[in-house]
Amino acid sequence: MRLAELATPALVIDVDVFERNLSAMAAVLPGRRLRPHVKAHKCTAIAAAQARHGHESFTCATPREMLGMAAAGFGGDLLLANEVLDGARLAAMAAAADANPDVRMTVAVDSDVTVDAAADAGLHDVLIDVNIGLPRCGCAPEAAGRLADHARRRGLTVRGVMGYEGHLMMEPDRETKREEVERAVDALLGAHAEVGGDIVSSGGTGTFDLHDRVTEVQAGSYALMDTQYATLDFGPLGHPFALALAVLGTVISVNPQWAVLDVGLKALGMDHGNPSIDTGTVWFCSDEHLTYAPVGASARPGERVRVWPAHIDPTMAQHERVHVVQGDDVIGTWPIDLRGW
Amino acid sequence: MRLAELATPALVIDVDVFERNLSAMAAVLPGRRLRPHVKAHKCTAIAAAQARHGHESFTCATPREMLGMAAAGFGGDLLLANEVLDGARLAAMAAAADANPDVRMTVAVDSDVTVDAAADAGLHDVLIDVNIGLPRCGCAPEAAGRLADHARRRGLTVRGVMGYEGHLMMEPDRETKREEVERAVDALLGAHAEVGGDIVSSGGTGTFDLHDRVTEVQAGSYALMDTQYATLDFGPLGHPFALALAVLGTVISVNPQWAVLDVGLKALGMDHGNPSIDTGTVWFCSDEHLTYAPVGASARPGERVRVWPAHIDPTMAQHERVHVVQGDDVIGTWPIDLRGW
Repeated sequence: MRLAELATPALVIDVDVFERNLSAMAAVLPGRRLRPHVKAHKCTAIAAAQARHGHESFTCATPREMLGMAAAGFGGDLLLANEVLDGARLAAMAAAADANPDVRMTVAVDSDVTVDAAADAGLHDVLIDVNIGLPRCGCAPEAAGRLADHARRRGLTVRGVMGYEGHLMMEPDRETKREEVERAVDALLGAHAEVGGDIVSSGGTGTFDLHDRVTEVQAGSYALMDTQYATLDFGPLGHPFALALAVLGTVISVNPQWAVLDVGLKALGMDHGNPSIDTGTVWFCSDEHLTYAPVGASARPGERVRVWPAHIDPTMAQHERVHVVQGDDVIGTWPIDLRGW
Repeated sequence: MRLAELATPALVIDVDVFERNLSAMAAVLPGRRLRPHVKAHKCTAIAAAQARHGHESFTCATPREMLGMAAAGFGGDLLLANEVLDGARLAAMAAAADANPDVRMTVAVDSDVTVDAAADAGLHDVLIDVNIGLPRCGCAPEAAGRLADHARRRGLTVRGVMGYEGHLMMEPDRETKREEVERAVDALLGAHAEVGGDIVSSGGTGTFDLHDRVTEVQAGSYALMDTQYATLDFGPLGHPFALALAVLGTVISVNPQWAVLDVGLKALGMDHGNPSIDTGTVWFCSDEHLTYAPVGASARPGERVRVWPAHIDPTMAQHERVHVVQGDDVIGTWPIDLRGW
């Protein structure tokens, strides 16, 4: 199938850019040094490509991602980097692990109640989630040792610690970012000294190159990228990742001052603001439309335009499938099979 | 089932508030005076409730909404208030209309090319979409007559005109809004004089009470509402519609300064900004989390919290189903069956 034949709006991955992104990451963080974050794409076919590039362990944000990854054969070492109190969902993960010796499900815990929920559900493995500066989940670093003791008393294996310095991902000054990441990792390693275990897990695409003191990095956006992450400068590495994902749209209406695409905010993640296009200035998005001012050549009805999302994760979550393209050819279609919770 | 047993994040409709919203609208715009907009909820069960309140015609934004509404038995008079150039999707709508004498599919057109696409696909009915101030779709008012002539030459029945004054929905000053709506309707009626046909369709929830010169109003948000529309004051009508839809969340992590809910931006529409909660101040949303500062009593893990979305339409589109609740009882679960395009 040709790109021009796709019904729009349609998610499209440029497979050459995508493969280059995966190679660039695996060169810096090979194998288990990277635990790719599935929440960025919610697609087991993309996880399969990451596995082909040598990564054997994965990070998830929801029970459905955990169960779907295990069902797809990527369950060897799954981490739910999120707190869950839903007994039924925790029990489903425990059952999936118990049913298959090749599946290992580790969940993050940050309180007695999350430890107890994991133990009560029959899970075996936990990681102590430590707050290292982002006001979100994670226990205080000084509380991590006591929490690990509680988990071990409840019969759980404590595999180590994790902490996500999400507040530093978009820090524009590289030296400031390096110093702040060092400080966050100091806190995480301090907690690890009290907790024990083999794993110290941290980081994301915005800090992937600054993590030589942890055992693994949780990065997801690097594979497909978005216009926000594309602004990052990684110093000596430059810009190792490029925009691999767009929402393909069709011009459906043309006016002397503006044109309208059939890619609206229901086809995009909008929390990082408007998307971008190469051939014009985006004015605004509504539910099913994007209004823009064409730059250079005027727009014509039926014209295809690539829309670059500002935030990849929620954009992927809006769609049922993503098409894999090489030049003007559609060479595959992958279901976004891990949507929902 | 009880509310406390729902897996979260979960969309919940307070059925008493919902029914009051439907009654309040039907009192002002009964029967065909309202053409409820399906894009706001994407749920045929909600359309069924609107039909129970006397409305027989519906507005859609996507071909999938049109086909799904027809398949669910609400196809008597469907309007696709959007331009579509996708021949296969237009042909599917034409086939659905031809297969069932009780189904009528009318599509909006604003250019020769959209007229030709509708005619080529075998559709029978169009409405001339007229730009009345919002920079989006719609032909210039002075071009509407010529476009209607072209449509009739192509064998299409031109049922009238539509125009959406979306730029006026949130105008805070009521007198300004009234004057601007009058001006927009003047333009629409001027176009209608050239076009002919029985239908003059316009408006939305933000202007529903200011439209005595059109034959029908396209409103959708009124049924479920959101925090943005809830700010509107309708003068003598006051606030006829209340918040009927929330995303139910669970507190998964508690800190001395903040608490974290499992309702993230993938469970919400974010283009109108952060959602609200009754028991705290929202700090920010991330993919799967909402961080907030509790007000009054402190939060406890496992506590259930209702999150009020800022924009209803994209919030509904993120979920597979919505639960219908009365007090603490879940009395039904409806699939959001019109998602996608």
